[in-house]
Amino acid sequence: MAGSTFGTIFKITTWGESHGAGLGVVIDGCPAGLYLCEEDIQEFLNRRKPGQSHFSTPRKEGDTVQILSGVFEGKTTGTPISLVVYNENQRSKDYSEIASYFRPGHADYTFDMKYGFRDYRGGGRSSGRETIGRVAAGAIAVKILNLLGITFTTYTKSIGPVSYNPACFDATQIFQNALYMPDAEAASNASAYLEACMADHDSAGGVIECIISGMPVGIGDPVFEKLDANLAKAIFSIGAVKGFEIGDGFEAAKATGKTNNDAFRLNELGHIEKATNHAGGILGGMSDGSDIILRASIKPTPSIASSQHTVNKAEEEIDINIHGRHDPVIVPRAVVVVEAMAALTIVDALFVNMSARMDSVKSFYDEL
Amino acid sequence: MAGSTFGTIFKITTWGESHGAGLGVVIDGCPAGLYLCEEDIQEFLNRRKPGQSHFSTPRKEGDTVQILSGVFEGKTTGTPISLVVYNENQRSKDYSEIASYFRPGHADYTFDMKYGFRDYRGGGRSSGRETIGRVAAGAIAVKILNLLGITFTTYTKSIGPVSYNPACFDATQIFQNALYMPDAEAASNASAYLEACMADHDSAGGVIECIISGMPVGIGDPVFEKLDANLAKAIFSIGAVKGFEIGDGFEAAKATGKTNNDAFRLNELGHIEKATNHAGGILGGMSDGSDIILRASIKPTPSIASSQHTVNKAEEEIDINIHGRHDPVIVPRAVVVVEAMAALTIVDALFVNMSARMDSVKSFYDEL
Amino acid sequence: MAGSTFGTIFKITTWGESHGAGLGVVIDGCPAGLYLCEEDIQEFLNRRKPGQSHFSTPRKEGDTVQILSGVFEGKTTGTPISLVVYNENQRSKDYSEIASYFRPGHADYTFDMKYGFRDYRGGGRSSGRETIGRVAAGAIAVKILNLLGITFTTYTKSIGPVSYNPACFDATQIFQNALYMPDAEAASNASAYLEACMADHDSAGGVIECIISGMPVGIGDPVFEKLDANLAKAIFSIGAVKGFEIGDGFEAAKATGKTNNDAFRLNELGHIEKATNHAGGILGGMSDGSDIILRASIKPTPSIASSQHTVNKAEEEIDINIHGRHDPVIVPRAVVVVEAMAALTIVDALFVNMSARMDSVKSFYDEL
Amino acid sequence: MAGSTFGTIFKITTWGESHGAGLGVVIDGCPAGLYLCEEDIQEFLNRRKPGQSHFSTPRKEGDTVQILSGVFEGKTTGTPISLVVYNENQRSKDYSEIASYFRPGHADYTFDMKYGFRDYRGGGRSSGRETIGRVAAGAIAVKILNLLGITFTTYTKSIGPVSYNPACFDATQIFQNALYMPDAEAASNASAYLEACMADHDSAGGVIECIISGMPVGIGDPVFEKLDANLAKAIFSIGAVKGFEIGDGFEAAKATGKTNNDAFRLNELGHIEKATNHAGGILGGMSDGSDIILRASIKPTPSIASSQHTVNKAEEEIDINIHGRHDPVIVPRAVVVVEAMAALTIVDALFVNMSARMDSVKSFYDEL
Repeated sequence: MAGSTFGTIFKITTWGESHGAGLGVVIDGCPAGLYLCEEDIQEFLNRRKPGQSHFSTPRKEGDTVQILSGVFEGKTTGTPISLVVYNENQRSKDYSEIASYFRPGHADYTFDMKYGFRDYRGGGRSSGRETIGRVAAGAIAVKILNLLGITFTTYTKSIGPVSYNPACFDATQIFQNALYMPDAEAASNASAYLEACMADHDSAGGVIECIISGMPVGIGDPVFEKLDANLAKAIFSIGAVKGFEIGDGFEAAKATGKTNNDAFRLNELGHIEKATNHAGGILGGMSDGSDIILRASIKPTPSIASSQHTVNKAEEEIDINIHGRHDPVIVPRAVVVVEAMAALTIVDALFVNMSARMDSVKSFYDEL
Repeated sequence: MAGSTFGTIFKITTWGESHGAGLGVVIDGCPAGLYLCEEDIQEFLNRRKPGQSHFSTPRKEGDTVQILSGVFEGKTTGTPISLVVYNENQRSKDYSEIASYFRPGHADYTFDMKYGFRDYRGGGRSSGRETIGRVAAGAIAVKILNLLGITFTTYTKSIGPVSYNPACFDATQIFQNALYMPDAEAASNASAYLEACMADHDSAGGVIECIISGMPVGIGDPVFEKLDANLAKAIFSIGAVKGFEIGDGFEAAKATGKTNNDAFRLNELGHIEKATNHAGGILGGMSDGSDIILRASIKPTPSIASSQHTVNKAEEEIDINIHGRHDPVIVPRAVVVVEAMAALTIVDALFVNMSARMDSVKSFYDEL
Repeated sequence: MAGSTFGTIFKITTWGESHGAGLGVVIDGCPAGLYLCEEDIQEFLNRRKPGQSHFSTPRKEGDTVQILSGVFEGKTTGTPISLVVYNENQRSKDYSEIASYFRPGHADYTFDMKYGFRDYRGGGRSSGRETIGRVAAGAIAVKILNLLGITFTTYTKSIGPVSYNPACFDATQIFQNALYMPDAEAASNASAYLEACMADHDSAGGVIECIISGMPVGIGDPVFEKLDANLAKAIFSIGAVKGFEIGDGFEAAKATGKTNNDAFRLNELGHIEKATNHAGGILGGMSDGSDIILRASIKPTPSIASSQHTVNKAEEEIDINIHGRHDPVIVPRAVVVVEAMAALTIVDALFVNMSARMDSVKSFYDEL
Repeated sequence: MAGSTFGTIFKITTWGESHGAGLGVVIDGCPAGLYLCEEDIQEFLNRRKPGQSHFSTPRKEGDTVQILSGVFEGKTTGTPISLVVYNENQRSKDYSEIASYFRPGHADYTFDMKYGFRDYRGGGRSSGRETIGRVAAGAIAVKILNLLGITFTTYTKSIGPVSYNPACFDATQIFQNALYMPDAEAASNASAYLEACMADHDSAGGVIECIISGMPVGIGDPVFEKLDANLAKAIFSIGAVKGFEIGDGFEAAKATGKTNNDAFRLNELGHIEKATNHAGGILGGMSDGSDIILRASIKPTPSIASSQHTVNKAEEEIDINIHGRHDPVIVPRAVVVVEAMAALTIVDALFVNMSARMDSVKSFYDEL
């Protein structure tokens, strides 16, 4: 079915395969009058681009975005914004081997069983390049949210067993190491861990954390459209995610009410705030004014250089060696994808929230 | 906005508050010709009913369901099924105190900020009684899935620090202890832990696990409608959930590709299967034929008998004592809610999947 | 599938059959803080109630509505509003004859073919009583729109060949004759026509017109969510509708650009307005500030007292006589249904429109 | 909001402006395994291309479609199909005059009021070129439907006052005259009428009729997702449509039950059929097995060469002369747009229908 569309009012539809003509996204429901140019989007795409470090695939792709519609005289018009990134790297490599079997940890088998066959070139639609459309659209969502005073701090919390040290958290570090960690020493240790993985023809996973500051209170809707539920879906729709947490997450299950409840208090301006933030910024499915804190567990890259056991399309058991270079870890490049998906969720929740109260609706139309 | 509807083709809409006239659900998109009676649904509601053990609120509610539409001569007709549970316990208790302040860990503050006021009687719409509609609809989803060979095993994995012992897993135990644990000794230890919490005027959380067996391969859709993404949303839409995992979840972030990849092999019937199941039954967002394994972290009940610090509606800091008896843990009663939400997600994914291939569509209409 | 839900932000879900336990609707996405009581809704239901005149079925139904959720202390809370009308008239009449064949002009045959069987008691879900949920929800939509300065004038334009005379249009007449015509003489002529139809064991159709005044400019969205497209769907989803027009409708096809174009001009206050209104208040799918004028063609009641030819479930050709009394015309009772569906469409379009401009979004959240 | 997406399971999203970089559509939810090439789509686009006759704008556009994704080895893969038509004709004509005022009959005023400004080059998003995405997607829908035995006959019923003569209906004529009329003599008379309009610096409208044959019975869903309601929305979402009918349409309002009811009978094969087809192939919102007959009223082209009165952005009344050549009638080019929108509606309804019965669902998954 139609699984490539996300959002209710701020709605995006992505398309494209790893080795097809290109990849893109249509953003529909972006408010009119937002200043937007290709550089706004390119900046985000560059954060996920391959070939930036020793730990990402050396495939050289410019990943240059073009705006095909929806922007006129430098501003969004309210009509759909179509963005495209053409693939430069479509050389007709021989894919006959990879086409013949099911790679462990990949979607080869499930694609074949669902659709009868698959575009096997570089993973086709299930390639990590599918996230280009998400990141391009997310750049616009972040730009809107920044105008509303909402900001994102997203980084690698851990690679394999190596976590950053909360006592050493330094946001300025995030963009100063190839792993996007907020702690130089942890980044150095994680790099060493990754070198060892690579030497062992192995790969690593990790955890990404995202902090969203400046949220108004009451965003999200009770029951099925809770803000945390929509964030969970958004983040879990990213290829390699296997776990998701808000606030204390799985630790909350071990806590007690006395320690887990966040007391309310008044801040120096006399405004209500929470004294602690075990809840991670969401109560009853709605933002509570504290920072939203979310976390995603990312599995190790399934493509490894070691020999693996699997089954081929002729239904025979075989041992395979996947050729070519692959990212030993996708966590650093996925940081911006997590940020993009979180931003897309929040901008949609903000727009949907505008008719929550009759008095606000009346004021809105009285002022028109 | 409209946050009380869930699903695309098998769509449910819930309504009702804790101390209003009643609670209910409309199930739209249920196939015609399913045998259905009130007992099918009551059985599920009884699993979440209060007053069943020492560890749940003694509020006595029959929670008796009535079918108001959509069933004729014992079978579903294809038109919407309206289910209602009237509240028996609407006595006009004095809620003026609870109405005046914001309980820590509850949605009082966020509801007030979003909507301007709230139905403060027993939590109103944010009460755990909101799940009655989910469970009633989930009973129908499970009945459909059972007909298709898909079954659920759902249980309490842990209460606070007490986990079941996987070596002692015994599914027959689940319905033999008040905590729905698959391990009698763990249930006994968890009970002792809960007694201690109660003596300390405190509360506990825990983890619920759900295993879904018999899935066809290829259910779920790539990109945003991945089966795990929709399960994440479904489970995270339950009130107290703070974390969600599929398969190895957060452990996968620490694993390496060599250990985390599940090799494919042929079983004794010559069918393809995975040798291990770190993936938890989903690859690339689609079911892979192995059991789907999911986990939800549930926070401790926020209503505790101890004194707590908060702010009142007059924006003054105060200390409060919440009166009345409350569940010291909601995990056992939430087990059936997790199962219901998982079932609702899967039945919808199965229906949506039916047009995935042109040859299947053609066969379907040629046979009509 | 799930065909009983309508709307994006202001979303309604109806349920119920003619001779089941009752009929109802859940309204989700109604803003909080709207004063609402059962009388607000009952007033609309009374406009479609049977037994009000010589020309409607004498079935006596109180059609008394109850609010089961979503209203607290006299105001909407922002959570779903559940409304129910219990059926008083469920006597177990013998339906075996009607169950055995397919009535011409009814949905018996299509229901049986789609679902395998049907609730044949009084038409089941395809009965005109299905509109109770629409009208109840529409009453709330109209109440919201009135607060925003938007009003409805809906009436019978014609019954069979008898049209009202535009030169004699008198809105105060609408509620003074059983046919809801804005012209006493036309109402009298139409009554005579209906008497003749009844004497001949025949039935009549007609045209309903709805005028919506006070619309802000720019409501509706280009391309697929045009305001007129959504009105067309809303009105065409009413059982007996066979045609729909906006403004000059089918006459526009015969006009030329010179006569059909509406010139813009300035009114006495210096505001832009259209000099004429061939467009019926919508340009490019968005409201243009003029009255929205829409029209629905309603077919003659298919249940007639004369003998008819048809096929039975045993696939034999037979002649039938449908017993019982039926409305010789449903147009007058459908007037309020048309108004309800138009109001539901417009309130949803207004809510969706609130994020159309970046500056409005920013003002909204800056003021929060 | 997001107004550029249409459909539930077979979902399309269009984008692009008249004088932007290009126009396109993403089709998501197309079943895998459909043979598809650019020629399949080009054939449909050629039917709406400008410059084909004396009666369409001489703007020369190749309107050549490219498939950017979703097709591999000649077949659809089940992933989104991205189609693009680049604009050849983007020359920077001076639009300063047209930008300064509101053209009567166009969306200039409503766009400006909704969004604050507009892309005024050639109408921007409200240009007839917006339909390129609809037609390209519709070509795929028609290809699918043909495989299921469903066919379309779509043509111009009338231009201004000149209608085809039903007694002379000849489907082979449709593609033999520039007006797509099924009657050579009527086409000749209509051409003469258009010549007169052009000589008078005026424009014409008309009516398009579409006949859909081979429908299975029971497609469409009761209440809000009736097949006729969705067709009404689909057709009314086309720019210049002002009226829509199914079967006898507005004539049904003047008929009586005796004449309007279609008797059921058995055909020579013993299958149930309707003896007449006043209903236009739909009963109770579901297809009844007869041909579906629908009709759209198209208003005269608003761009005319004559002087017109209007208001400019400085809010002054002015007289304008719109320069450039425009289609004196858009009806012939809209024929394929009507067919495309009808096909998109029906293919979606067929996919949604697949889970209507429990026994069909069970058979489907048992056979997997």
